[in-house]
Amino acid sequence: MTYDAGHYDVIVIGAGHAGCEAGVAAAKMGANTLMLSMNLDMTGFMPCNPSVGGPAKGVVVREIDALGGVMGKVIDKTYIQMRMLNTGKGPAVRALRAQADKPLYITEMKKTLESQENLTMRQAMVDRLIIEDGVCKGVITETKAAYYAKTVVITTGTFMRGRVIIGDISYESGPNNQRASVTLSEHLEELGLEMVRFKTGTPPRVNSRSIDYSKTEIQPGDEEPLAFSYETTEFITDQIPCWLTYTNEFTHNVINENLGLSAMYSGMIKGTGPRYCPSIEDKVVRFNDKPRHQIFLEPEGRNTEEVYVQGLSTSLPEYVQKEMLQTIPGLEKAEIMRAGYAIEYDAMVPTQLWPTLETKKIPGLYTAGQINGTSGYEEASGQGIMAGINAAAKALGKEPVILDRSQAYIGVMIDDLVTKGTNEPYRLLTSRAEYRLLLRHDNADMRLTEIGHRIGMINEERYARFLEKKRLIEEERNRLEGIIIKTEPHVLELMEEAESVMKEAQRASDLLKRPEIKYSLLEKIVPADKDLPADVKEQVEIQTKYEGYIKKSMQQVERMKRMEDKKIPDIINYDDVSGLATEAREKLKKVRPLSVGQASRISGVNPADVSILLVFIEQGGHTKAANQ
Amino acid sequence: MTYDAGHYDVIVIGAGHAGCEAGVAAAKMGANTLMLSMNLDMTGFMPCNPSVGGPAKGVVVREIDALGGVMGKVIDKTYIQMRMLNTGKGPAVRALRAQADKPLYITEMKKTLESQENLTMRQAMVDRLIIEDGVCKGVITETKAAYYAKTVVITTGTFMRGRVIIGDISYESGPNNQRASVTLSEHLEELGLEMVRFKTGTPPRVNSRSIDYSKTEIQPGDEEPLAFSYETTEFITDQIPCWLTYTNEFTHNVINENLGLSAMYSGMIKGTGPRYCPSIEDKVVRFNDKPRHQIFLEPEGRNTEEVYVQGLSTSLPEYVQKEMLQTIPGLEKAEIMRAGYAIEYDAMVPTQLWPTLETKKIPGLYTAGQINGTSGYEEASGQGIMAGINAAAKALGKEPVILDRSQAYIGVMIDDLVTKGTNEPYRLLTSRAEYRLLLRHDNADMRLTEIGHRIGMINEERYARFLEKKRLIEEERNRLEGIIIKTEPHVLELMEEAESVMKEAQRASDLLKRPEIKYSLLEKIVPADKDLPADVKEQVEIQTKYEGYIKKSMQQVERMKRMEDKKIPDIINYDDVSGLATEAREKLKKVRPLSVGQASRISGVNPADVSILLVFIEQGGHTKAANQ
Ligand SMILES: Cc1cc2nc3c(=O)[nH]c(=O)nc-3n(C[C@H](O)[C@H](O)[C@H](O)COP(=O)(O)OP(=O)(O)OC[C@H]3O[C@@H](n4cnc5c(N)ncnc54)[C@H](O)[C@@H]3O)c2cc1C
Ligand SMILES: Cc1cc2nc3c(=O)[nH]c(=O)nc-3n(C[C@H](O)[C@H](O)[C@H](O)COP(=O)(O)OP(=O)(O)OC[C@H]3O[C@@H](n4cnc5c(N)ncnc54)[C@H](O)[C@@H]3O)c2cc1C
Repeated sequence: MTYDAGHYDVIVIGAGHAGCEAGVAAAKMGANTLMLSMNLDMTGFMPCNPSVGGPAKGVVVREIDALGGVMGKVIDKTYIQMRMLNTGKGPAVRALRAQADKPLYITEMKKTLESQENLTMRQAMVDRLIIEDGVCKGVITETKAAYYAKTVVITTGTFMRGRVIIGDISYESGPNNQRASVTLSEHLEELGLEMVRFKTGTPPRVNSRSIDYSKTEIQPGDEEPLAFSYETTEFITDQIPCWLTYTNEFTHNVINENLGLSAMYSGMIKGTGPRYCPSIEDKVVRFNDKPRHQIFLEPEGRNTEEVYVQGLSTSLPEYVQKEMLQTIPGLEKAEIMRAGYAIEYDAMVPTQLWPTLETKKIPGLYTAGQINGTSGYEEASGQGIMAGINAAAKALGKEPVILDRSQAYIGVMIDDLVTKGTNEPYRLLTSRAEYRLLLRHDNADMRLTEIGHRIGMINEERYARFLEKKRLIEEERNRLEGIIIKTEPHVLELMEEAESVMKEAQRASDLLKRPEIKYSLLEKIVPADKDLPADVKEQVEIQTKYEGYIKKSMQQVERMKRMEDKKIPDIINYDDVSGLATEAREKLKKVRPLSVGQASRISGVNPADVSILLVFIEQGGHTKAANQ
Repeated sequence: MTYDAGHYDVIVIGAGHAGCEAGVAAAKMGANTLMLSMNLDMTGFMPCNPSVGGPAKGVVVREIDALGGVMGKVIDKTYIQMRMLNTGKGPAVRALRAQADKPLYITEMKKTLESQENLTMRQAMVDRLIIEDGVCKGVITETKAAYYAKTVVITTGTFMRGRVIIGDISYESGPNNQRASVTLSEHLEELGLEMVRFKTGTPPRVNSRSIDYSKTEIQPGDEEPLAFSYETTEFITDQIPCWLTYTNEFTHNVINENLGLSAMYSGMIKGTGPRYCPSIEDKVVRFNDKPRHQIFLEPEGRNTEEVYVQGLSTSLPEYVQKEMLQTIPGLEKAEIMRAGYAIEYDAMVPTQLWPTLETKKIPGLYTAGQINGTSGYEEASGQGIMAGINAAAKALGKEPVILDRSQAYIGVMIDDLVTKGTNEPYRLLTSRAEYRLLLRHDNADMRLTEIGHRIGMINEERYARFLEKKRLIEEERNRLEGIIIKTEPHVLELMEEAESVMKEAQRASDLLKRPEIKYSLLEKIVPADKDLPADVKEQVEIQTKYEGYIKKSMQQVERMKRMEDKKIPDIINYDDVSGLATEAREKLKKVRPLSVGQASRISGVNPADVSILLVFIEQGGHTKAANQ
């Protein structure tokens, strides 16, 4: 029935945000890679908000870029506005956020993939996997093409047995009226993979012509040129504003009166929704004392009148959506172009994955993106690049790459997923990262470029530029350490201007540690003998100013690493470890952590269990048991 | 179950090529118009060749523009190359053809519609019509929204119970892996509309990086600026070439060896395919003495590596497609991005339509585009604009607009469809137009702008410019009629250069009638006192040069018009007309022609039948019968 359609190193199913990164990563690693997706015209399509970045998420985009991925470059070429968030706060929570031009993003992403060496893109619906002796060996499409590969990455997002739900209506469909992926989902279940039912929702889009912007507040982009990618050198200057308005008691009345009709509350929706992207009905119910909620009006692109109504995600019936809009200043006459809806889909229980994102049950099979229980483009992309790297590594006989919690938000996310699992669509938040002072927007390159280069995803030229940047930072930090600034009149004057006091001579680097002293001030007193790039100055300032905190974090990381270095042998049988609490034993059996560190993060595994486990391993309990 | 989602004058279902024109036309006519389509991101999507225009089709685009439609303007803003075909031949067969940038075309078309006053675009799948007392009153969507309107236009293309077929595989699907439109199709059948099964096919797309262009011939665009729209004033100058290669005996061997596997030949496909866009297997079988067929490699856009393999439409299995490509110079290593496929779909028998494109059975319901049994973007657009105009006219209580066979290719096409029906996907050809000397590319504005203006689709400013053009043409023709050119030495010299001989003084207009004398030559001898626009000069030249032929055509048109003016009364009962041949009687009952002219074009109605019919009507047979 099937025919042999070709042999590859890696096959990626899906060309959403996870799939695009996975495909490029595998190809850049040197793997002969095939990417299959349902509709090439929807490559990198954004089914929900027209934006990339934001707290934690924006840092992920930088991390992807530092590893050699594509999301940052593509959004840098296609945004309609860009802002740096939290500039008033510390560097740990600063983050870039861009409004995307959705159709342009697709064009640019598709072009990037089409031009990638080693990568073949093809339109096809995958129905099944080829499994031989329990190992994944390829895929079979709807047209009975059998493509063989050493490893396969599934990134099928919300398409898996997708069901759209609006009010009391529901029908089988992928996002945005695309076909759902039903056969593949059934097949994964047959293979014994455990699936859960999650849901997510999206707000209505309205026609710009029907909005009265005079009743809203303008939200322009930042004036200074900003970029996600460390390689971007050209910046888009003609930015387009967003607009801010608010819900009010009338809106909330409409919602409360119709709550019974919301698919969320009527019991229609069985899937669990994302806590951190709640629907408007959720917000009104959960925060019923809040008199209003923010509504951002975000253009979906430069060349379209479609406007995304951020903050109004809903599964209420269409006519209630219309009523709701009519209560909001500026939207009284808004014409809906696409109604909001909720979508329910199958997701994998992510504790079935190794930290490489390979499934434990089926060697050679990797999964990444929304199918792993996450929500959000950046979360998908962050997993995508790691799954692509590891699928290629395995196919090419190279070492796997696992980022730990101190290296990257991506590491935090994947560790959370595979260790703790998730009961709801998982979203990255700054608060999930215990070492967030280390996982900054500004230093993603410092953290990850070495790795990207080692595995072949960062080319020599970029790497040389990176090394030069590092060298300049070190040189300048050393210089500042070596200079003593005296209390000369012009110095004291400058200090006074900065509202700082200086009583005696001080090391330049010590002065820079003061919160009120900026690097730009030091430059006036003790200028470097060459003109340093802005990003070098930024690193010198941040590294010096936060040295104390960073050191403390690093010590914690050291402790964590020691636990992480205590590997749990493959052959361990948790039934032999006496004294473990029953819940801990069960969780450990399920998750099969690679290290004591990972074990300690499993919810339900308590410090007492960790100690017992440590002692057991240190006493060689596993080998004794194995030898019996 | 349903809810009242709003009231409109006109509803258009579908935003393909027919739907886009229908929506804009109805809105421009002043009707409050709603357009519903499955996926807004696919507005104006081209599921097959990335090109617009060509013989006959290109003239239709000009006609649409002259009536105030949008296709011409949109392609003028988004082409990657443009050529004037048949420049060596007479003006009757000249035609523009543009290679389109597919993604850009979508963006531009969507933006045009979004910005159109009176037009609301919304994403929704229509499942049923609202029929009250046999009259169409609106539509019901998948989400149970009931939209009411005075008239409804269906333009659902190849989505109607679409089935994709490749080799021996077939599955339910719309074009390009979109959802098929099943419920609506079943509903139309339930309503008693007669449907047939047609099919069409598309070739594979390949990645440009995998093509060896050195083995092909370059096909650049024309250097001089060209445009479809009479309003275009800015021209795209950086054009992109296409490339020409050929099939050969190896290709034909592959096809012949695998013919049994072609869905076309294995009996898998029940639908009738388009004779004039045959699949490559068709071509090889039907023209088996031809050693090779042309294959054009056409980029699908500026920002994509996808290349359309024109000439290789096929429903052979994917692996045969690959084998086939490997035999073609330049494509030996071509990587398929999308496989070729055939699609089978439901089409309406178009003799169920009045010349306004209203269905006879269900007043208020109009259909346009591929659903009426045609094939091709321009054919769809040409019907779309007329259905939009007539649906709006009916909704607003205005006169219907019917173009006759001497006015426009659009008129020829619609008359062919509603009068003769079609046994296969109908395509416009120059040969279908008996008055093709009148239906030229260059004079579409002369033929149709008056109408466009009268119905409110051409604004005053454009109309004033048009009247001025007409005035200048007339003035210049009169001037040339009035000037006698003498055989002066410099005149004779110029004549000799043009390889013409002049023995005695002649009227300037008579000289221009000579094939070898161009207007540009006359300009040198008897220049006008002002600088005339190029299109005015072109008209003066063509109108003068072909005056004799044009006059003859006009006389034929007069005769045709006399027959067309012989209206057949509504109340006629063909059973009362004794002497009619049985076949003629049946056909007449089915088609219910509006005039004796239309009756005479029904296949199966012979001149003898026409005479009998004429006599019957002239003798008032129908009233006599009715009074009995
Ligand atoms: C209605 C809706 C609302 C959302 N709301 C939010 C929100 O509020 N906040 C937020 O952060 N995120 C939201 N998202 C989630 C966001 O869209 C996803 O997280 C992100 O797109 C996931 O990326 P992905 O790569 O995992 O999957 P997707 O982007 O969904 O891509 C899946 C890819 O797989 C392909 N595919 C699927 N099945 C097959 C198959 N069988 N064979 C071949 N190809 C296949 C598809 O063609 C597609 O290319 C929402 C999504 C939807 C649909
Ligand atoms: C595989 C293939 C090969 C082709 N090959 C050729 C060729 O060789 N030569 C040629 O000239 N032409 C070819 N065509 C035909 C050409 O694509 C069509 O003639 C043209 O696109 C028809 O335009 P249309 O507007 O009638 O329909 P389409 O362009 O198909 O548009 C249909 C519209 O209706 C919408 N729709 C459908 N059902 C519903 C519903 N229930 N509710 C709401 N919206 C709905 C869709 O979303 C879409 O917007 C081919 C088409 C296909 C698919």
